[in-house]
Amino acid sequence: MSFTFFTPGPAQLYPTFEKHLQTFVSEQLGSISHRSQQYRDLHKFTVDQLRTLLNVPDSHAILFLGSASEAWERILFSCVELESFHLVNGSFSKKFYDCSNALNKYAHLFEKPMGESFVASEIVVPEYAELICTTHNETSSGVQMPVAEIHKLKQRNPGKFIAVDMVSSAPYPELDYSLIDTAFFSVQKAFGLPAGLGVWIVSEKCLQKAESIRNQYSIGAHNDLPTLWKNALNNETPATPNVMGIYLLGKIAEDFNKIGVQTLRKETEHKASLIYKFIEKQPGFSTFVKEKANRSQTVVVTNTEMPSADIIKHIKAKGMVVGSGYGKYKATQLRIANFPATSVEDVEKLIHELGSL
Amino acid sequence: MSFTFFTPGPAQLYPTFEKHLQTFVSEQLGSISHRSQQYRDLHKFTVDQLRTLLNVPDSHAILFLGSASEAWERILFSCVELESFHLVNGSFSKKFYDCSNALNKYAHLFEKPMGESFVASEIVVPEYAELICTTHNETSSGVQMPVAEIHKLKQRNPGKFIAVDMVSSAPYPELDYSLIDTAFFSVQKAFGLPAGLGVWIVSEKCLQKAESIRNQYSIGAHNDLPTLWKNALNNETPATPNVMGIYLLGKIAEDFNKIGVQTLRKETEHKASLIYKFIEKQPGFSTFVKEKANRSQTVVVTNTEMPSADIIKHIKAKGMVVGSGYGKYKATQLRIANFPATSVEDVEKLIHELGSL
Repeated sequence: MSFTFFTPGPAQLYPTFEKHLQTFVSEQLGSISHRSQQYRDLHKFTVDQLRTLLNVPDSHAILFLGSASEAWERILFSCVELESFHLVNGSFSKKFYDCSNALNKYAHLFEKPMGESFVASEIVVPEYAELICTTHNETSSGVQMPVAEIHKLKQRNPGKFIAVDMVSSAPYPELDYSLIDTAFFSVQKAFGLPAGLGVWIVSEKCLQKAESIRNQYSIGAHNDLPTLWKNALNNETPATPNVMGIYLLGKIAEDFNKIGVQTLRKETEHKASLIYKFIEKQPGFSTFVKEKANRSQTVVVTNTEMPSADIIKHIKAKGMVVGSGYGKYKATQLRIANFPATSVEDVEKLIHELGSL
Repeated sequence: MSFTFFTPGPAQLYPTFEKHLQTFVSEQLGSISHRSQQYRDLHKFTVDQLRTLLNVPDSHAILFLGSASEAWERILFSCVELESFHLVNGSFSKKFYDCSNALNKYAHLFEKPMGESFVASEIVVPEYAELICTTHNETSSGVQMPVAEIHKLKQRNPGKFIAVDMVSSAPYPELDYSLIDTAFFSVQKAFGLPAGLGVWIVSEKCLQKAESIRNQYSIGAHNDLPTLWKNALNNETPATPNVMGIYLLGKIAEDFNKIGVQTLRKETEHKASLIYKFIEKQPGFSTFVKEKANRSQTVVVTNTEMPSADIIKHIKAKGMVVGSGYGKYKATQLRIANFPATSVEDVEKLIHELGSL
């Protein structure tokens, strides 16, 4: 039996994945040297496609890591001598905060309960914080911080670096990289690829900061920013990278560019609105995120009256997999991913089955 | 045209790779949750197969990283408060040393020219060094430090931790984990897989050290040893891992176990002896590593009278890819990988073509 995955990552693989994988295998790309021109061309292709898709200017590098979680550490190593500041409203924003403490930085915190978001006007950034850490899309709670609020936050604090976790939303958020210093995502969410690759978008200003503090503080050794940056100028990576992941990401990004990122974003919003409308009208379901503007377009979270495990089981028998709630909400919520790999028809089928429970 | 890769990594993919990849795709393993029982079973299968293959006792965990280079950093974070000691005889052992400096540790050095190795009796470990870093197989120079010398080194310094880089030789070296505290390798060498996954074997003693120093020194945040260890007890990883890589590694390790690791080692030695014999007798070729006991069984390095680029080009026209020399030896050496993915027949064909230049 073949399933359609509405899980928030690993998720449904993008429909063209198998075709690109076959090309990777038949062209023996798994064996090419990561110091060859053939690799550099492949690497450049992926960076170029992502640059177009996400509208990333030349002031920012696009770098590859083992996972998006690695980006938390590398950003803190690079941009923070002593103090960071974190907006925390769920498990993943909390992990970014924990990461700063583990690196012996002083991590300031502005915390809200799961399900709530932040507006720029209420946020007071501590005076000595060097970096503001935001999460565009909290995968644990289905809360989205509007991009406009993230931009405003930087405009109100122009002297601070700002980082955006868009792990489970890229390429949906339309970030303005004249304001955003660094952002990151992983490929097993909206790009519909197997896990094992993180993408780190980072400005030259972050590089300069890393270089300025490295004599006094460790900025890490593996995948430290200056070494990653230097290698990226030559379309290479310091260590042997996940060549397969980088290749597939470039091909999927190309497919996305052919559709057009704005079309993709509109489709995402259309499918999300179908799911939210269903949740609102359907007895036994209710949206977890009360504020409409904060409802994630890519990870929809619903409270359920029935134990969510029963719904998951029922839906699985119909050939679809949805995610459980996160942490303490495991038994009482569903998380329904809304990534480009699932079509309007897939979403309609899911809604139909959820409605026939 | 299809090529046979004798390159030292990325390398020839193992013959069963495509079959296992097909299973991964058809079973939709790229979409399963990394917090599901299905994933935990997959993870455990790979760990169990590696434990059998490499004879790793229960005192040691088998952990997954983004690359073997990441292991350098994680080992230094975990096992070194202040001082490490490095045997350096090529580019990769040098990088391990550089990594310690970048983490603001004090790194002691015993260096020899490329092409030479170490014996335990000549090594004086500095009094305050907490960790001895050895490289079983220097991928840059084709030098192998005999396993017996590595074991002796630990026996002479029982109070120190010892780490073994076996990136480009595992599963060939028969390490005794009652002596070896930690070792690591990557999958794009002898396991014949695409790059993007590192394997870290590490003892409970290393974990205890990491836990004992974490209050005073940062032991890292992403993939820090206590968090990796705790997750591994549940057959999970802290972040979403390279599930595809872990699955494929388990299947290849199973294939290796079916052949038997001793048979695999004997085959490796037999193929290496064919290549070394050819180099010794053939005009225009000469072995780079003078001491027989130090000649790598998995990465054979030969000096060439002809520019090595010409030989590489000629051999490529015959459907085979060999590696160039490393760094300053790029133009005057060849590096010929001898991993399980290339058969005796492949090696004989390569020798035949090199002999007809």
